[in-house]
Amino acid sequence: MRNIIIPTSSKIGKNVVIKEGTIIGENVTIEDDVYVDYACIIKDNVHIKQGTFVGARCILGEFLVDFFDDMKNKNHPLIIGRNSIIRSETIIYGENEIGDNFQTGHRVTIREKAKIGNNVRIGTLSDIQGHCEIGNYVNMHSNVHIGHKSVIKDYVWIFPYVVLTNDPTPPSEELVGVTVESYAVIATMSVILPGVHIYEDALIGAGSIVKRDVAKEEVVVGNPAKFVCKVSEIKNKITGEKVYPWRYTFGRGMPWSEEGYDRWVESNMYLKE
Amino acid sequence: MRNIIIPTSSKIGKNVVIKEGTIIGENVTIEDDVYVDYACIIKDNVHIKQGTFVGARCILGEFLVDFFDDMKNKNHPLIIGRNSIIRSETIIYGENEIGDNFQTGHRVTIREKAKIGNNVRIGTLSDIQGHCEIGNYVNMHSNVHIGHKSVIKDYVWIFPYVVLTNDPTPPSEELVGVTVESYAVIATMSVILPGVHIYEDALIGAGSIVKRDVAKEEVVVGNPAKFVCKVSEIKNKITGEKVYPWRYTFGRGMPWSEEGYDRWVESNMYLKE
Amino acid sequence: MRNIIIPTSSKIGKNVVIKEGTIIGENVTIEDDVYVDYACIIKDNVHIKQGTFVGARCILGEFLVDFFDDMKNKNHPLIIGRNSIIRSETIIYGENEIGDNFQTGHRVTIREKAKIGNNVRIGTLSDIQGHCEIGNYVNMHSNVHIGHKSVIKDYVWIFPYVVLTNDPTPPSEELVGVTVESYAVIATMSVILPGVHIYEDALIGAGSIVKRDVAKEEVVVGNPAKFVCKVSEIKNKITGEKVYPWRYTFGRGMPWSEEGYDRWVESNMYLKE
Repeated sequence: MRNIIIPTSSKIGKNVVIKEGTIIGENVTIEDDVYVDYACIIKDNVHIKQGTFVGARCILGEFLVDFFDDMKNKNHPLIIGRNSIIRSETIIYGENEIGDNFQTGHRVTIREKAKIGNNVRIGTLSDIQGHCEIGNYVNMHSNVHIGHKSVIKDYVWIFPYVVLTNDPTPPSEELVGVTVESYAVIATMSVILPGVHIYEDALIGAGSIVKRDVAKEEVVVGNPAKFVCKVSEIKNKITGEKVYPWRYTFGRGMPWSEEGYDRWVESNMYLKE
Repeated sequence: MRNIIIPTSSKIGKNVVIKEGTIIGENVTIEDDVYVDYACIIKDNVHIKQGTFVGARCILGEFLVDFFDDMKNKNHPLIIGRNSIIRSETIIYGENEIGDNFQTGHRVTIREKAKIGNNVRIGTLSDIQGHCEIGNYVNMHSNVHIGHKSVIKDYVWIFPYVVLTNDPTPPSEELVGVTVESYAVIATMSVILPGVHIYEDALIGAGSIVKRDVAKEEVVVGNPAKFVCKVSEIKNKITGEKVYPWRYTFGRGMPWSEEGYDRWVESNMYLKE
Repeated sequence: MRNIIIPTSSKIGKNVVIKEGTIIGENVTIEDDVYVDYACIIKDNVHIKQGTFVGARCILGEFLVDFFDDMKNKNHPLIIGRNSIIRSETIIYGENEIGDNFQTGHRVTIREKAKIGNNVRIGTLSDIQGHCEIGNYVNMHSNVHIGHKSVIKDYVWIFPYVVLTNDPTPPSEELVGVTVESYAVIATMSVILPGVHIYEDALIGAGSIVKRDVAKEEVVVGNPAKFVCKVSEIKNKITGEKVYPWRYTFGRGMPWSEEGYDRWVESNMYLKE
């Protein structure tokens, strides 16, 4: 921690590494076992929980627009959960509380009031506009854009260059967000138009422009996106086996990765009794 | 301004804040009331006008390609207008003059010879390739790509992931830019092909691939984009009221925000007499 | 080289410039005539060959995912070829060997195990996911996304916002890459679906969603992309002359730039005898 200046209002835990060139603001809390790589800017009121890695040159607690009223930072706390990996050059605004096991790629931008659950992964260059809700175990790949008022439930997959929009008659003041229910999958370069509701286990094919709601377990594709089939009709081209709903065939990174989805649901039901 | 080295050829105004880690080149002018956040690189011949904010780790006056001839910076001035907000990690090349009240999101890239008017906003990750013209009160959202030879007039709105192209037969040397007339709107993830002319108040729907000119007040959509209706036929789904031309129904950030478009035009006509 | 600390395990050649704020890791080799601009982070085991320029705030030798096992950098060398231009804020992972005359735009990200030939150019914001092969004289414009297992041969052109995908049934573990043969051209905002094979001299029009293989010298366009014509049928709108295969009409940056493609092929055949 050569040359790192820690203001007296800030607290650094045990076994913390802070590499050269990092700047620590006022009222910062860095818990035990955190690693902060070179030249990060950690602004005021940031709380980094135990075991988290912060890549080189991240900016945490970035100024909200109210900074520009008088060029003074207001009190907008940022909390980052335990055991997270924030890759280099990510920018996260103040006024955010992010869950545990969070992961970002490089150069992710997260504006204020993005409610983010546990075990969320957000890929390189993705741009979370804030004022939105992202559940647990959500996976976004590179360069995803999430507009204001989006609601993304749990176990959703969003692939590169997908945009969730919000303005039905641009430019306007009346934003209407997209809702994506649990287990839905949105493939590469799709645009979801304002107010569209995508239901559980739906699959949006690559390059789709989605103007209408997509029902549970439906596959849509095209510009404009149209109904193709039910997800259960899609088969692995090599094995001929069913693939969807994907939760029965894929587990990496999911809470059911070891026992499978069915048993995991059973176990959880048992626990709840 | 701890540890900031100001070369004798550079001038710093009154009430200027320069945070730690910023590097100031030769022949730099920073006017009064400017705020430069942490670790910016302000290269030679940059002029930042009064009241402007420069976010953390911006690079202003980036090298043009002639730098690589002999690894020496040539004289390519950059001027940034008054009361601008340049958000963190934006890169702006030398050989640019940008108007007042300019705003960028994060990680915007602006190459040389991008003529940019007053009151322009360019969103996060947008990539302005230079050798183009952008008028006044132009709004670009995130991740917009503006190719060489594009001409964008005043009061234009461009939404996320829109690309203005320029090469009719790629790869070639004969670039033909796109022209976008005043008050036009281009929605998310649209591509405008080389040489296309979009006329006043036109509206390009999301996900459109635009291969032909779009007439005044026309709505086009699709791949390839086709005529749908006149903008006056679009109604707000909730109120049933007309929305377009948008200048009659929307004013935020526009010079007519207080009095409305009609009265503002009247006032201005009166002034000109 | 004011204030630059060079570990004893690292070697710096003659006539090297390293600007302020740069950090040099262990076992770094910087050959003669290299220029490293402000505030770069050059991690362990990076080798920069003669005459290369590294722009401000690049991160070279970024950590692979095995770093997070114990927060220790493993031995993953990065080699960057001679006379390269790495523009500012580019991030390149360890475990990469890149050829000579390499050029990047700004904020390019290159993950591990991207095999990159000579004379390759990768534009601003492009995201090379690694575990892929890129030949010689490949040109990628801004914001291109290359998925794992992609194979791109020589003299290929890829334009802005193109995505090469790899997962036929997302999310899954069975990735199948795209193959792009030599001289093929992929225009703006096209998506190439997993396993698709694009053959020599093929041309993919802007905004295409390519689901099937594209034969040699074929033009496809649309969503989904369909056969339009042979490339030889495309003419320059002004001159009426044939444009494709482009190698006969375009030479900038190519090894045949001076003598033309035909003579260059002849010369090379002669040399091989």
